[in-house]
Amino acid sequence: MKENGIGSGQIIRRKQDGSLEYHRDELTIEEPLEIRIGETTVATTMRTPGHDEELAAGFLLSEANVRADDKIDKFSRPKTARNRENVIVVDLACGKTPRLKTAQRFGTISSSCGLCGKESIDAIRQNFPLVKSKSFRIELATLLSLPAKLRGNQSDFARTGGIHAAGIFDAKGEALIVREDIGRHNAVDKAIGRAFLDGKLPLDRHLLLVSGRASIEIMQKALAAGIPIVASVSAPSSLAMEFARESNQTLVGFLRPPSFNLYAHVERVVLD
Amino acid sequence: MKENGIGSGQIIRRKQDGSLEYHRDELTIEEPLEIRIGETTVATTMRTPGHDEELAAGFLLSEANVRADDKIDKFSRPKTARNRENVIVVDLACGKTPRLKTAQRFGTISSSCGLCGKESIDAIRQNFPLVKSKSFRIELATLLSLPAKLRGNQSDFARTGGIHAAGIFDAKGEALIVREDIGRHNAVDKAIGRAFLDGKLPLDRHLLLVSGRASIEIMQKALAAGIPIVASVSAPSSLAMEFARESNQTLVGFLRPPSFNLYAHVERVVLD
Repeated sequence: MKENGIGSGQIIRRKQDGSLEYHRDELTIEEPLEIRIGETTVATTMRTPGHDEELAAGFLLSEANVRADDKIDKFSRPKTARNRENVIVVDLACGKTPRLKTAQRFGTISSSCGLCGKESIDAIRQNFPLVKSKSFRIELATLLSLPAKLRGNQSDFARTGGIHAAGIFDAKGEALIVREDIGRHNAVDKAIGRAFLDGKLPLDRHLLLVSGRASIEIMQKALAAGIPIVASVSAPSSLAMEFARESNQTLVGFLRPPSFNLYAHVERVVLD
Repeated sequence: MKENGIGSGQIIRRKQDGSLEYHRDELTIEEPLEIRIGETTVATTMRTPGHDEELAAGFLLSEANVRADDKIDKFSRPKTARNRENVIVVDLACGKTPRLKTAQRFGTISSSCGLCGKESIDAIRQNFPLVKSKSFRIELATLLSLPAKLRGNQSDFARTGGIHAAGIFDAKGEALIVREDIGRHNAVDKAIGRAFLDGKLPLDRHLLLVSGRASIEIMQKALAAGIPIVASVSAPSSLAMEFARESNQTLVGFLRPPSFNLYAHVERVVLD
């Protein structure tokens, strides 16, 4: 049975030499994930299924619903929901109260939604401790080695630009965690969520590298995890740059070895 | 005065040969835009200032708050708001009632927010007429020429990946409109908004090319404008592919001449 000239679940690929091939489509699935704290829905995000616990943990940390020193008691799926696998319920450890008000005020999942401009920078920053590490620096050669290392940890599809990747690296350029997702915010949430669940926060001697643009939310997520250096292979936004300057974060953009730009707190990159 | 090792408003650029230069930062400004219909706030989106009327028109069209045959009476800035330039007020022509309910149900500005998966596809499609044009086809050579034409219409900064671009082309590969924005949805809104304000809808003999990924919202915006072919230089999402197949739209992905993929309704591309 052919639909639309191709079989269901098939695509046509035109190759470099002009020949045509039929393939099964391999598009990364995107499905919604509803994140609940107890009975309360905090957010719904479109994500690539997998690592849902990390995604939920990283998201709640970034939105200051939970703090770095909070403990999550358990994750579960609701018994009655229609698409159980697209809902995750987070229960905090006994005695911890989630900060749901914060999420309502700053519950922004994407750069398109709800952020109210420069005056929000201070308000967002107040939710997180400032990056403390003044001594942490990264060598030039190490910085330049990271994009290749991130790609080396990515799936084939991600390398083609199909989905985004986020990697957390130490001062020696060793990858601590690399995660992928169709949404670049989700990839970061999964990476910092993993570190949070492993009790590794604050990541004050680490660097976050993202495959896409560095928006203010990426800086916010890095700050929530205590990460002092953020690097992006693409452009930072102007708000991301302002946020970095205010919150004592180093911001590297257009990291395309051998060239890159430094937008804030250049002192953490050893340039000579 | 140096702050953070660089002057305020400055960045350090490491060039290909390893030398360092000081530059003024040239980051595209992102500011919020609040879109109101009369007294009612419909959405707030982070955007690159400029072409605000087009952005508002395209957004409202995509969300089915206005229909292709509606007329917008005027745009204005509120007299009293604190940041007047970040608010735009849309007044519909006399006798037209905006469909605010729709916006509340499907008021999704980004792929991260609020879309509820596959069951939403039908619900979204019901807001728009199906693409009618069966006869519109595009020649292979024309399709392959479009990415270079889009880049030729972009600013230097956009070519580096700093911001997104969306272009509407006719069957001969002539650019009707090219717009840029820090948000890829906004670039599309501005392009179809311009066509809407010029009375050119439906664009049923045109193609939309986007510089980023093709998400379901991009397909939705194309459908709202009656555009039968959507091409992306990067990956489509799985929901975008499903949406295209259901709504009679041709979807081209990874358009990187001489290669590309066809995901839906291949019959509109003349492959021989």
